[in-house]
Amino acid sequence: MIHAISFEHGRLRYLDQRFLPLKEIYVETKDYRRAVDAIKTLAVRGAPLIGIAAGYAAVLAIAQFKGKKRSLKSHMAHALAEIEAARPTAVNLFWAAARMKAALNDAFETFDIPEIARRLQAEAEAIHHEEIANCAAIARHGLELLKRDFAHVLPHQRLTVLTHCNTGTLATGGLGTALGVIKVAYQEGLIEKVYVSETRPLLQGLRLTTYELEKEQLPYEAIADGASGFLMQREMIDFVITGADRIARNGDTANKIGTYSHAVNAAHHRRKFYIAAPVSTIDSAVSSGHQITIEQRGNTELTSIYGKSVAPVKTLALNFAFDVTPASLIAAIITEKGICEKDYTRSISTVVAKPMNGHKPLQPALLYD
Amino acid sequence: MIHAISFEHGRLRYLDQRFLPLKEIYVETKDYRRAVDAIKTLAVRGAPLIGIAAGYAAVLAIAQFKGKKRSLKSHMAHALAEIEAARPTAVNLFWAAARMKAALNDAFETFDIPEIARRLQAEAEAIHHEEIANCAAIARHGLELLKRDFAHVLPHQRLTVLTHCNTGTLATGGLGTALGVIKVAYQEGLIEKVYVSETRPLLQGLRLTTYELEKEQLPYEAIADGASGFLMQREMIDFVITGADRIARNGDTANKIGTYSHAVNAAHHRRKFYIAAPVSTIDSAVSSGHQITIEQRGNTELTSIYGKSVAPVKTLALNFAFDVTPASLIAAIITEKGICEKDYTRSISTVVAKPMNGHKPLQPALLYD
Repeated sequence: MIHAISFEHGRLRYLDQRFLPLKEIYVETKDYRRAVDAIKTLAVRGAPLIGIAAGYAAVLAIAQFKGKKRSLKSHMAHALAEIEAARPTAVNLFWAAARMKAALNDAFETFDIPEIARRLQAEAEAIHHEEIANCAAIARHGLELLKRDFAHVLPHQRLTVLTHCNTGTLATGGLGTALGVIKVAYQEGLIEKVYVSETRPLLQGLRLTTYELEKEQLPYEAIADGASGFLMQREMIDFVITGADRIARNGDTANKIGTYSHAVNAAHHRRKFYIAAPVSTIDSAVSSGHQITIEQRGNTELTSIYGKSVAPVKTLALNFAFDVTPASLIAAIITEKGICEKDYTRSISTVVAKPMNGHKPLQPALLYD
Repeated sequence: MIHAISFEHGRLRYLDQRFLPLKEIYVETKDYRRAVDAIKTLAVRGAPLIGIAAGYAAVLAIAQFKGKKRSLKSHMAHALAEIEAARPTAVNLFWAAARMKAALNDAFETFDIPEIARRLQAEAEAIHHEEIANCAAIARHGLELLKRDFAHVLPHQRLTVLTHCNTGTLATGGLGTALGVIKVAYQEGLIEKVYVSETRPLLQGLRLTTYELEKEQLPYEAIADGASGFLMQREMIDFVITGADRIARNGDTANKIGTYSHAVNAAHHRRKFYIAAPVSTIDSAVSSGHQITIEQRGNTELTSIYGKSVAPVKTLALNFAFDVTPASLIAAIITEKGICEKDYTRSISTVVAKPMNGHKPLQPALLYD
């Protein structure tokens, strides 16, 4: 079992993902600045996981406070500003910091410092538990969907699945999104093997997803990103499931570069292509994929690997970090509040409006990782 | 200009491709054993280039002979056996060695050693020149095809093209096959930009094709293999052209893994997908792609890059070296003897039967590189 992040006896413990899968280094700290550094240096990555880490960092910050109660607010304002500044574009960071600030304000007048600290810890744990619960709900809905869509096959054989990038514990702190569906479907006996596309340029599939599947003892094989079509031609892949970085109101989905090629191959070979993502990924301000700006990153992500040059740095490279899969190629979008299917504009607006256990609605996530 | 291989003043000179593109090391040698080592160690790679190197190695071997004429045949038999053994599956090696042996036998009774040596050199140069001529003829036919297929577009704009793996000077000793078409089309003003897919696992696109295009000053950008679909969605790619490792009688084409995904994406976006390859690549013994056995190679090609581990060696990986693109997705197969189009079974048998300048027909090439 991987503990991407945990908090016990006043200590934050996290797996330093920079060294995965070659080295498995767990770090324990009581210093919130160390937690901020973990977010800054990508030791902790993945939007939901960053949000969780931000919550716990605030808990460490209040535990480190040694002054009188009247100075507590300025100490915490300072610490929360540092937490928010750890990564410039991670919405989960701001959202988690805002929740911690609200919890502080709610408790400040009424309670003493130890009780305020307990309440901050409860709020950080709530953030963590909500992410875990979202993953579990996504996995449950995904399992039901697979049972329905493969009802004609499952009595006779188990399924093979392709996934892309890393959408597991290492990204979410919970079971994962797409990878969570796969894990639960495996436990329920639906899955024979997981094909992991390596996910160039940053190799999240080859480095992180294989690591998770190895740890959790699921049968898997890594493949080159360009090999998915050939495996489908040979009838080695029954369905594809990936996460999402941002989903438009019409169901068009931005995700890690390479996702769209898998979706096109799935359509060509009449394989189901699913998205699994929390409702927070739906950006209601965006009506279609055309409105999603795709970040282009530098050459060196392609021309060097683990700091080793594989081509001269001056080699010209076009490095779109994400691509957009049109809703027409997506068989279903699996969220914690249920399944969206065509017509997506209607089904998506339904899940967005649906309350979930009285939790505050999450903010739209930025493209991450 | 890249001189992948040349022979002057009794010396073989070759570019050691193992260090490309980080280091550009040319090696000169008068020792045939050094040439054999270059083939063995992949310093010289690509089936046509290996054949050329084998011919010149035999020329070095006769120049190194110091004995009486009666011992020449056994000396050369020994040297040619070493040349043939340099790589176990490279048909071009056997074929070139057989031609050198035939040239030796033809000249042996009539001529003295210096004249026999001159004739061996002439035969090695003939092999080299034939490869160059094949490339030039492929490029000429490809150019005409592009002018025809894009007649409606070319008056208004130049074309963008995607290619995969390395099919240029570094593989052939000539202009190249697919890359040769691109180079000549660029010179003729048809091409605006070349997208080079990096070609995991061994990165021939990112390492070798970018190097050639940089040297020859063609505008290019490297992309991740999984990005081709997204670029087509954004209308950034007008057509795709790749080489071939083996072509069946019905036009089904085996080529470097990743080719088929590009072809599926091209079909989905209604882009032309072409193959450029010498007639020697057509294997008349194979009626369709189903009969082509696809080599699976070890994990470490995926899990380590330039000798650096990116995942534990024990990480499970499925590493098909090639894939098969069905003829139905191929707009045309460009050979040195002309263009094959549908119906491929008929057009391919026509080019195979067609004589070319009285040259001996080449043998089918094995999957290489």
